[in-house]
Amino acid sequence: MTPDEFRRLGHQMIDRIADYRANVSQRPVMARTAPGEIKAALPADPPQSPEPFDTILADVDRIVMPGLSHWQHPAFFGYFPSNGELSSVLGDYLSTGLGVLGLSWQSSPALTEIEEVTTGWMRRMTGLSDAWSGVIQDTASTCTLVALICARERATNFGLGRGGMQSEERPLVVYTSAHSHSSVDKAALLAGFGRDNVRYIASDANFALRPEALETAIREDLAAGRKPCAVVGTTGTTATTALDPLAEMTRIARESGLWLHVDAAMAGSAMVLPECRWMWQGIEGADSLVLNPHKWLGTAFDCSLYYVRDPQHLIRVMSTSPSYLRTAADDKVKNLRDWGLPLGRRFRALKLWFLIREQGVSGLQTRLRRDLENAQWLLARIRETPGWRVLAPVPLQTLCVRHEPEGLAGEALDTHTQAWCDRINRSGAAYLTPAILNGRWIVRVSIGALLTERPHVAALWELMQKEARRAQ
Amino acid sequence: MTPDEFRRLGHQMIDRIADYRANVSQRPVMARTAPGEIKAALPADPPQSPEPFDTILADVDRIVMPGLSHWQHPAFFGYFPSNGELSSVLGDYLSTGLGVLGLSWQSSPALTEIEEVTTGWMRRMTGLSDAWSGVIQDTASTCTLVALICARERATNFGLGRGGMQSEERPLVVYTSAHSHSSVDKAALLAGFGRDNVRYIASDANFALRPEALETAIREDLAAGRKPCAVVGTTGTTATTALDPLAEMTRIARESGLWLHVDAAMAGSAMVLPECRWMWQGIEGADSLVLNPHKWLGTAFDCSLYYVRDPQHLIRVMSTSPSYLRTAADDKVKNLRDWGLPLGRRFRALKLWFLIREQGVSGLQTRLRRDLENAQWLLARIRETPGWRVLAPVPLQTLCVRHEPEGLAGEALDTHTQAWCDRINRSGAAYLTPAILNGRWIVRVSIGALLTERPHVAALWELMQKEARRAQ
Repeated sequence: MTPDEFRRLGHQMIDRIADYRANVSQRPVMARTAPGEIKAALPADPPQSPEPFDTILADVDRIVMPGLSHWQHPAFFGYFPSNGELSSVLGDYLSTGLGVLGLSWQSSPALTEIEEVTTGWMRRMTGLSDAWSGVIQDTASTCTLVALICARERATNFGLGRGGMQSEERPLVVYTSAHSHSSVDKAALLAGFGRDNVRYIASDANFALRPEALETAIREDLAAGRKPCAVVGTTGTTATTALDPLAEMTRIARESGLWLHVDAAMAGSAMVLPECRWMWQGIEGADSLVLNPHKWLGTAFDCSLYYVRDPQHLIRVMSTSPSYLRTAADDKVKNLRDWGLPLGRRFRALKLWFLIREQGVSGLQTRLRRDLENAQWLLARIRETPGWRVLAPVPLQTLCVRHEPEGLAGEALDTHTQAWCDRINRSGAAYLTPAILNGRWIVRVSIGALLTERPHVAALWELMQKEARRAQ
Repeated sequence: MTPDEFRRLGHQMIDRIADYRANVSQRPVMARTAPGEIKAALPADPPQSPEPFDTILADVDRIVMPGLSHWQHPAFFGYFPSNGELSSVLGDYLSTGLGVLGLSWQSSPALTEIEEVTTGWMRRMTGLSDAWSGVIQDTASTCTLVALICARERATNFGLGRGGMQSEERPLVVYTSAHSHSSVDKAALLAGFGRDNVRYIASDANFALRPEALETAIREDLAAGRKPCAVVGTTGTTATTALDPLAEMTRIARESGLWLHVDAAMAGSAMVLPECRWMWQGIEGADSLVLNPHKWLGTAFDCSLYYVRDPQHLIRVMSTSPSYLRTAADDKVKNLRDWGLPLGRRFRALKLWFLIREQGVSGLQTRLRRDLENAQWLLARIRETPGWRVLAPVPLQTLCVRHEPEGLAGEALDTHTQAWCDRINRSGAAYLTPAILNGRWIVRVSIGALLTERPHVAALWELMQKEARRAQ
């Protein structure tokens, strides 16, 4: 495709996206596609000859668009907000259009240094001290894997340079709350700890890790000859946005020599609001943390920030230096390939840089506060309505809700919960994610899509009541 | 930013990229930025208030653009081609603009199914059998890490579900060529094997792994009570594009129960040409392989394909199923979160789908053949010129070159090699990557940027001769 063709077709693409964003509320939020339907609409073999671009776009309209669930829809209340602010989208467009790659600093200096600047900005925006160093990764799953590998290597004094994990005599143990994200469990298993050495610590009535249970588990492992290695705390768990007690976990981690990793993937964005920073009090005592500007904050996916206190440790675990990657500047610059798993890196910082500058800290704060207020508004409505229950504190923008008609309990209640949630999702008018809490199904209402205003939340509440009545 | 503002500013961004691509050849290929220069040009604190978009774009012109090395430049001969065909760029623009996310199939069915279709297309385009199943990851580094973790879990019969790697009694061993990519070493260390258990097998005069040396190493490890676990072969090594003997490695892997992972990150694109497929003869006996359409083929970075023979094994190693991710469709669809590390996934397939359709297989083949012919043309020029030497076979598009003036050897020759390469890079007229081969510096000429035509290669050859003379 020539630059001139790109100019013409690119303008069309921009118009297409502008129209999509302007009219997304008219679409059903959740895709109504049947499994296999999209695959069946396309040939199993690639085209031998070039196809006209119009044919490709026609297939986008005919096949792709009806097969999407619309995360940018104002009635998207599922999972978590994955906001792609249009200014951030333009930052990403610049990145992809330039097509430059970060292998070393030299391979595109601006890619590395704008990343240093923007991760520095985010550090200050969230109230973190300058003792943290940041880098952009793809997702929190990757950051947590990196954190647990770094913990492993600190505990073994760089066993990777010798016999690896398999030469350790005392099994290393990882601790986390039973309410932590599935990626913590996955990271521990992939890093080689083994399920026998992952402890799921009990939580309190607010779904926060109980520090005394953590201390007991550590004592038991020590007594059994095992070696406590790492603990993962969460600021804003996935199901309920519960807040683990970081200050106490910091103390315990320090006393027992544990690596403390904090998963603030979702709630990290809220730390842009000074009034929310009590939620991760103690954070300065952690060794690593992850927060995802690609969620609520509005950076186009993917942009996950990984911060560490000791970048030299991270580099020592991750670095490689083959001759073909060495440059004369290496001792004066950061080579971010040594800060994570991939060697090649996109110019991801642009989409975060564009977002922060176009919105300003104040603009971001205004929107986050809007969402917190919407959550409190919905909370008040639900609390005042008989038959409805909120099952967890609402410090942020997620509500865990159940409709509990008189006489309904146990599996019958589960069936009812799933039925009304399913009716809403199938209606196309809103999208919610069910989850299990204390062994029973609940429905999560996650507020915070860019376009979600009070009337959308009010309409959702009407819909919830209507569908819960009908499902009875 | 409203959709209307996006429409206006988006058109400007398209024009900006079209102009950039049309005129990139007028820029110096390698950035001339001094370390820290870009950071110093920006405030350490984020802007409190929104900034006008024009201010942001002015900073792009003033700070970002001079700080780039231009991978899309026709005189970019460094590292490897990282081609972002403009049709593929538009596919990525669609993905970012839609802002949909793959967590489960249900969270956007088209994202998953178009990925199944395009990885299927690539499988057929590269002559692989339908016994392979593919998924898109970010980079080859990640794919190789996933492969070695899968190997580890097969060898331990899912030790991750028990005591993990640390409970294994016989150390597991990984084998690879000394010429394999640094990411293989990194993956083995991160996966917990430890440096003592990674064997770098000797290679032959063509820099290909010697099968008999592999067999000897396996025998020695077995005799010492260790457990051979995995071997990584490379089709197209980074330094010289050497071709490991996959057919023999397949046989050895099968006999010894090793997992065979093939790194065809760069050369995999060449398999779109039937005449190149001899290069990975034996591939059907491997357990996993990686090939990167984001390199030579032209898919905008990042798009790395990971293929496996046994997807159920991959899923068993990688899967998690928390309640908030379960959907009614789960038993009828692929949930690609269980095929790799990250939970959240971009709609990456669009940029590959757009590329294949807009170019057609024939269009891609024509361009790849152009590059192979340019490499052979340059090879002939160098071979016929006294004082110049090509140090490795040229099966693909990379030449390993040295200018060897009479009487120059050892460190003096190294100094000379680095001097002329450095002069070329600093001139801005072309960009080359030096590397060490057999203990001495050489210069790699990697041909295959989208815009690189014969005259650019001829101009490079003139420049090489001129700067080599001057550096003497």
